[in-house]
Amino acid sequence: MLESTTIVVALGGNAILQPGHKGTFDEQNDAVKKTCVELAELVEHGNHLVVTHGNGPQIGNMLIRHEMASAVVPPMPLDVCSAESQGQIGYMIQRNLKNELLQRSLDRDVSTLVTQVIVDQDDPAFRNPTKPIGTFFSEQEARRAMATKGERWIEDSGRGWRKVVPSPDPLSIVEKQAIRGLLAAGNLVIAAGGGGIPVIQMPDGRLRGVEAVIDKDLAAQRLAVEVRAHVLMILTDVHKVSLHFHTPQQRDLDLVTSSEARRYIAAGHFPPGSMLPKMLAAVRFVENGGDFSVICFLEEAIEALEGKAGTRIVNGCMNLPSTGL
Amino acid sequence: MLESTTIVVALGGNAILQPGHKGTFDEQNDAVKKTCVELAELVEHGNHLVVTHGNGPQIGNMLIRHEMASAVVPPMPLDVCSAESQGQIGYMIQRNLKNELLQRSLDRDVSTLVTQVIVDQDDPAFRNPTKPIGTFFSEQEARRAMATKGERWIEDSGRGWRKVVPSPDPLSIVEKQAIRGLLAAGNLVIAAGGGGIPVIQMPDGRLRGVEAVIDKDLAAQRLAVEVRAHVLMILTDVHKVSLHFHTPQQRDLDLVTSSEARRYIAAGHFPPGSMLPKMLAAVRFVENGGDFSVICFLEEAIEALEGKAGTRIVNGCMNLPSTGL
Repeated sequence: MLESTTIVVALGGNAILQPGHKGTFDEQNDAVKKTCVELAELVEHGNHLVVTHGNGPQIGNMLIRHEMASAVVPPMPLDVCSAESQGQIGYMIQRNLKNELLQRSLDRDVSTLVTQVIVDQDDPAFRNPTKPIGTFFSEQEARRAMATKGERWIEDSGRGWRKVVPSPDPLSIVEKQAIRGLLAAGNLVIAAGGGGIPVIQMPDGRLRGVEAVIDKDLAAQRLAVEVRAHVLMILTDVHKVSLHFHTPQQRDLDLVTSSEARRYIAAGHFPPGSMLPKMLAAVRFVENGGDFSVICFLEEAIEALEGKAGTRIVNGCMNLPSTGL
Repeated sequence: MLESTTIVVALGGNAILQPGHKGTFDEQNDAVKKTCVELAELVEHGNHLVVTHGNGPQIGNMLIRHEMASAVVPPMPLDVCSAESQGQIGYMIQRNLKNELLQRSLDRDVSTLVTQVIVDQDDPAFRNPTKPIGTFFSEQEARRAMATKGERWIEDSGRGWRKVVPSPDPLSIVEKQAIRGLLAAGNLVIAAGGGGIPVIQMPDGRLRGVEAVIDKDLAAQRLAVEVRAHVLMILTDVHKVSLHFHTPQQRDLDLVTSSEARRYIAAGHFPPGSMLPKMLAAVRFVENGGDFSVICFLEEAIEALEGKAGTRIVNGCMNLPSTGL
């Protein structure tokens, strides 16, 4: 029944690098290899996949390298680092996924497309940068960067100062047609890694890279709409989305409608930078024509697709509980 | 007449970074922008393009960053750095080329594919690494790396010691079908950057990354054959290929046959690591069914395609000079 479903799968950070690991190649490759077993399982069940992924720890490491070597080799701006991370992570996924498919005698091509995502230069995020990037610095260094480069820095939970950049909403995937074409030809496509390379479109149509980070789940949602996917699957490290998370009142959600989910969002159930963008992405997808969104544990993707695990979000109004009238 | 010709264009290092520049983003972006004017001109003349490029200076800078930050963040192996450089350079080309096409009201998509290239693990290059990578070290540091890591290092022209890696022959482009598909759909494709990410194929078919660098012109030739291009165009910083280069006997070549070219190669006219791989790539392409190869100056691509500039290589035997008999 689920034959030929097109799924956009958004991989969380732990799919590429386990918490507590420093990020050696072997650590990352091992994590990616395990993730690719799950992805290959989805393919074996007859699904078409577009895979997207976060890049937080990898970009973090890159920024440290660029900073430490800056006296010798010129550091690159954030959009270029994002492109580098798409190459790095895309390669690791495409090789391991292809290998895993071969083990199952599935002859499918896997391609990584370097992906730009258009954002609005008038997005309010540009006036209020909130996304911390890179490593921690002293207050003195932070104040110097703020004064000399016009950057925004914040004190981060007593651990030091970090630069913050805007996190604007994704408007459109520049390479959507190419992704659609590859998908139609039976390719598995890796795209919009790290939320995509943020670009703004100038009045004459030309694109310019900007220093920003797009949330990867929100980018996955745009991608899912623009490649006309049936399902948006957000893989993460919790089994279900919960209300009153980590309190005695915690209630796990199995199935929610979009308007119900919007009510929970408005009530502040989901922390920003964590479950909030995932729920927002899930809701936006079904409100824009997607069959359903599912947020689930990495190893329960198949079960979640069958409605046996995770939290499923569908379009519609809340089913009012029976009042007994 | 040249409508709908498919050309694989191999960009030399100067197309991305001018000699003498350190490699700031602005320097690289400016060079790429100029290059994209030439590429857009080729598109405006009705050609389909697959673009490939070198990555020497970029990989060099990356290796310095990885080395200098290695006490803080784990350095990545060479195949991963190659993937990063494909992301970086691909992004710069795809954005600038798209912008240049828009200026000419050409609505064409430009896509960068992260590309793996299969090499033979029994390639003699693995027993005799010759390609220097990264920065210069002292003899002491080089000897330590040789003793502890089994690496090969060489003394490089009195400037210090450098690590050398194998430069095996490219056998096949893993992502060739995806490239063909994108091309058929009218996309301009950027692929096999830096000669491609070198991988070996294990007996069970699985791919494994290896520490090696594939010559970008030889990779461009494989790519050109495998995407069934009509023309292999190698853009460089000389106007023509010459015999007795930089001597009073210098003779520039306009048109040569493959067997003539092979004779010049055997006679040692072309320096390894410079014109030799270009000529070898040009010859192999026409011997494998290509219409013609052309080696020319970056700014003379159109003229070279029309036979008015550069050196053209065609398949066939040497035209024996008349002996007067």
